[in-house]
Formats: sequence, C-alpha cells, structure tokens
Amino acid sequence: MGKGEQTRTAVLEAATTQARAVGLRGLTIGVLAARSDLSKSGLFAHFRSKESLQLAVLDHARDQFIDQVLRPALRAPRGEPRLRELFMRWLRWADVPGGCLFVAATAEFDDDNGPVHHRLAQDQRDWLDSIAQIIRGGVSEGHFRADLDPEQCAFELQGVLLSYHHASRLMAASQARHRATQAFEDLVARAHPSPH
Amino acid sequence: MGKGEQTRTAVLEAATTQARAVGLRGLTIGVLAARSDLSKSGLFAHFRSKESLQLAVLDHARDQFIDQVLRPALRAPRGEPRLRELFMRWLRWADVPGGCLFVAATAEFDDDNGPVHHRLAQDQRDWLDSIAQIIRGGVSEGHFRADLDPEQCAFELQGVLLSYHHASRLMAASQARHRATQAFEDLVARAHPSPH
Repeated sequence: MGKGEQTRTAVLEAATTQARAVGLRGLTIGVLAARSDLSKSGLFAHFRSKESLQLAVLDHARDQFIDQVLRPALRAPRGEPRLRELFMRWLRWADVPGGCLFVAATAEFDDDNGPVHHRLAQDQRDWLDSIAQIIRGGVSEGHFRADLDPEQCAFELQGVLLSYHHASRLMAASQARHRATQAFEDLVARAHPSPH
Repeated sequence: MGKGEQTRTAVLEAATTQARAVGLRGLTIGVLAARSDLSKSGLFAHFRSKESLQLAVLDHARDQFIDQVLRPALRAPRGEPRLRELFMRWLRWADVPGGCLFVAATAEFDDDNGPVHHRLAQDQRDWLDSIAQIIRGGVSEGHFRADLDPEQCAFELQGVLLSYHHASRLMAASQARHRATQAFEDLVARAHPSPH
C-alpha cells in the first residue's frame, strides 16, 4: 500500500466511524479534517465532493461487512453451519456503537434518487442474494427442505435482524438478543425437512 | 378547537410531512416558517425549541398512527381478524412518501440519550405491547395456540414490517408486498392450534 492509499484508508476508517454517529448526510469534510491530519483541501484531493465521500464510505463499510460477516461465514461448512455462522456474525455487526451504517443510510437516502441510493440498493440486493445462496447450499446438502423458498427465507432473516437492531438500540431490551435467537432457531427448524 | 389550536395542528401536519422527507433532525423552524403562514417568532411561541418541536411532531405522528392503524384494527372482531386488520393497515402506513417516521427517527436518535430518544422508546414499547395484547386476544378466542408467546410473535411481526419497509423503499421491490404477506400468513399459520 502506497502512502496515498494508506492515508485514504485511514481517512475512510475515521469517516465510517463518524457516519455511524451522525449519518452519511451529517458527515462533513470540515469535521473530518478536524479529526484527521489532513487539511480540507487535502481531503478534497481524495474525495472531490461530499457525494463521492459518501460513496467511498459506503464501499468501505461494505468491505468491512464482507470481512467481518460474509467471508468468515463462507469459511464454515456449507449449509446450516454456514447460515448459523452468518447469523451470529450479523448480530455482532449490528451491535457496534452507532449501529449498522446501512440501516441508518437507508433511512437517510430511501427517498433519494441519486448515486448513494442506487449504491445502497445494489449492495442490499447483493446481500439478499448472498443469504439466499447460502440457504440454497443448505438445500443441496439436505439440511433444508427441497421446497424451501430461499428468497423468502432471506427476506424473513433480514426482518429478524432489523427487528433486533431496532429493539436492541432503541429499547436497550435485554430480551432483544434472546428474541432474535429464538426467531432464528424457529426459522431454521421450519427449514428442516419434515420428519415424515 | 380554538384558533390557536387549529394553527398548531396545521403546523404539526406540515412539520410531520417535512420530517418524513428530511428527518426529525433536518426539521428546521426556518423552513417550517417558509412553508406555513407563521413567522419564526410565531412558531417559537408554539414550540419553544427545536427539541420541543421534534417531540410535538412525534406525538402528532403517534396520534396519526393510532387513528390510521391501531384504532381501526380494534374495531375488527377480536383475535385473528383484528391481527389481520392491523397488519394490512400497518403495511399501508409504511407506504406513504418518506416512509415511516418512526423508522427514520429511530435511525437518527438511537445513540442519543435525550427526551426524543426516550419518547421513541416509550412509544415503541407501547406499540409492541398493543400487538402482543391483540395476539393474546387471539389465544383467548381459541384462534391461536395456548402456548404461543405473544411477545415473541410481536417481535417477529415487527421484523416482517421492517423488512418490508426496507425492501419496498430501497429496492422498489415489486415482490416486497408479496414477501411480507407470505411471511405474515406463515406466522399466522404457525400460531394456529395444531390439528392433532
């Protein structure tokens, strides 16, 4: 990694942390300059506009998500163990200070029609596809029913995580993790081939 | 309704619509003055601070939610019909331009520790209690299993709605409504007493 790229990565780390707290729209090059060793003009050299900074932060967060959630899950054995690894790591991802950046950014940009909205939507489709693919692997392995609808499962699993994120962050609900785990276990049990 | 109260209600309608688009934090007395017939000082007479405006908007949105979702559901027969009415109206609530104000406000205030956060958390607890209560009614009526966990069901139903909100707003997913309906039907089917 060259020096320029190192700087860029360090700035993106700081920017991603800041965005978790204040939102992507609240992310300003001014505040970022105050928190990094770069001047405003130095930051503009890396990110030519607020929008390109927002897009770079989303890409950085997506890379973090892949490193922390998807890639380690793909190292677990195919099928149910892989889905369990994914779920566990996804819960942990939602537990960081500031919560999930994608949830916050979606609330900010859902009515938008610009590049940030489209990047979020693309990432979201990719993510639901990845979950469905992992569930499909469970069908091939015989862990899950052959007539299971993997896209429907992915939609419902996303719902469990969103409900967990909502409950744990808003209500400091001691039961949020228990509820989410129970919902997940129930989803897996329903995915199993029926005993008869 | 006196004239002062009429004005207050009209301003709150405008403010709630604005908050759906720009968030509670983006709601400014300046923009609101530009969109209503009141001066900034007139608005300050009604809402002494940005925070008291945010709280008044939340209360107004909660009243709208009760009028559009909870109250009509409570007019349906107890048990499963009431839960179905609730679900149908809740989906419709999430479909307005700007999306659900509570979802957006939660993303904005989840790390906060002030009065807006606490009001949101209180409303959220009340809402989950109302759902659980309606499900409990379904148990008394014999529509649902006696060993059903109403709080767990409420958590999962909230997940279905959040996943719907996410998918329909971010991805313009034509399938979002179909997925949400299927998840709801599956949840209801699991709540039914087992046939044996």
